[in-house]
Amino acid sequence: MTGFAGGESVTLDLLKKKMAEFAKERDWDQFHSPRNLLLALVGEVGELSEIFQWKGEVPKGLPDWKEEEKEHLGEELSDVLLYLVRLSDICGVDLGKAALRKVGLNAIKYPVKQSQMNITSNNTTINSDENAQRV
Amino acid sequence: MTGFAGGESVTLDLLKKKMAEFAKERDWDQFHSPRNLLLALVGEVGELSEIFQWKGEVPKGLPDWKEEEKEHLGEELSDVLLYLVRLSDICGVDLGKAALRKVGLNAIKYPVKQSQMNITSNNTTINSDENAQRV
Amino acid sequence: MTGFAGGESVTLDLLKKKMAEFAKERDWDQFHSPRNLLLALVGEVGELSEIFQWKGEVPKGLPDWKEEEKEHLGEELSDVLLYLVRLSDICGVDLGKAALRKVGLNAIKYPVKQSQMNITSNNTTINSDENAQRV
Amino acid sequence: MTGFAGGESVTLDLLKKKMAEFAKERDWDQFHSPRNLLLALVGEVGELSEIFQWKGEVPKGLPDWKEEEKEHLGEELSDVLLYLVRLSDICGVDLGKAALRKVGLNAIKYPVKQSQMNITSNNTTINSDENAQRV
Repeated sequence: MTGFAGGESVTLDLLKKKMAEFAKERDWDQFHSPRNLLLALVGEVGELSEIFQWKGEVPKGLPDWKEEEKEHLGEELSDVLLYLVRLSDICGVDLGKAALRKVGLNAIKYPVKQSQMNITSNNTTINSDENAQRV
Repeated sequence: MTGFAGGESVTLDLLKKKMAEFAKERDWDQFHSPRNLLLALVGEVGELSEIFQWKGEVPKGLPDWKEEEKEHLGEELSDVLLYLVRLSDICGVDLGKAALRKVGLNAIKYPVKQSQMNITSNNTTINSDENAQRV
Repeated sequence: MTGFAGGESVTLDLLKKKMAEFAKERDWDQFHSPRNLLLALVGEVGELSEIFQWKGEVPKGLPDWKEEEKEHLGEELSDVLLYLVRLSDICGVDLGKAALRKVGLNAIKYPVKQSQMNITSNNTTINSDENAQRV
Repeated sequence: MTGFAGGESVTLDLLKKKMAEFAKERDWDQFHSPRNLLLALVGEVGELSEIFQWKGEVPKGLPDWKEEEKEHLGEELSDVLLYLVRLSDICGVDLGKAALRKVGLNAIKYPVKQSQMNITSNNTTINSDENAQRV
């Protein structure tokens, strides 16, 4: 992966191939059934949640976090992603294609004008109108 | 996104930009705090789990699933992905870079030879040795 | 808790009181906000899922599990329960009362006769009719 | 359940029996395998999370919530509880007994004096010392 500093060019397809290769080399395909992978994904979401559990609200950009905490966060976010990519592959779902399609569906479901109007300064209104912010 | 049939070239960075644009157009940035997005992610993982909940074991490739069920699955997998991408962005984590790094760490943690040896035909052994299959 | 071998008489109210006392003695009330507890609950659900993640289907009663595995399972199930009880308490919800009420609502939602009829030997039918088995 | 206004006397054992009876009457025992129930539990945790997802921090007692929101919350908390009780039963775990045992283990793991000392007014310290608040 030499040659670029950031991860701008990382495709879901690249991660899919890396995960498939990783499992094959270790004879782990036998364990990678859809529901096994799904439960592993849930396990990783649990680990991700633990990072945030006692913190109260956390501002964007995590200004007060130590570098090691951010690194740990990156690892847990990655674990969720890698199992998600693997689960999609094992289920025969083209995740990149599906994600682009879903962004398009969301744009139809939440038209710009109407979605803006749903926002008010009244906290209760926002709360009760929770579907308005779903994407 | 015209011009390609599959999602081979979909980068995490593209999805990040689409999500940022989507939120900005709707004035939803105010709702996209780290813990709000994390809970939204957990909600989507719940919807993904519901698809598999009463099915017992499901074979790879989902041979008996109807087309509409697979499409629904693709949507739920995408919802998890999109919130994960957005959460990473809001936290200032380069998800593509972090994922490649984690694949590398996993390769060190689970060397090919040793990981193969941990696999036996005895189910109990596999079960108790659960960490061996973690990635 | 001397005087009984099993947990037949353990009420949700007893657990609520024990959790409240536990937090108070340690000055942890300050950390037990609704969303902190919810994320802690998600973390424990992740740990529970990890126990089952590489096992494939698991028969009722866990006949092949070692005693230490069952004990570990009991601990993770308990962790989920204890955070659920604490979250309910902090939110002002009488969990025992709510649970009995929900059982009643479920009985109305899924009448015995109709719910039986939804079951067929055809696996696809069961799958696509997933709401029929919800409780 | 006539004769008491609150749920003070609701035992886990009572809920276990009600869930077993509910499933038996509907011929749903066939669906209630450990992993099916676990995924159903994850689904309900997702629904519980959705209630809190766009709210930002929520104060104890939910002072600004409408009665219908609180009722909905009670239902989702109950759904998680009911599947947890059912999962425990199907796995042969005495949940009430296990929960009392776990409270005892937690008391040993987090002694009162030491746990108090871990708390400081410095938010960063609390965050990085996340295990101190685990129960």
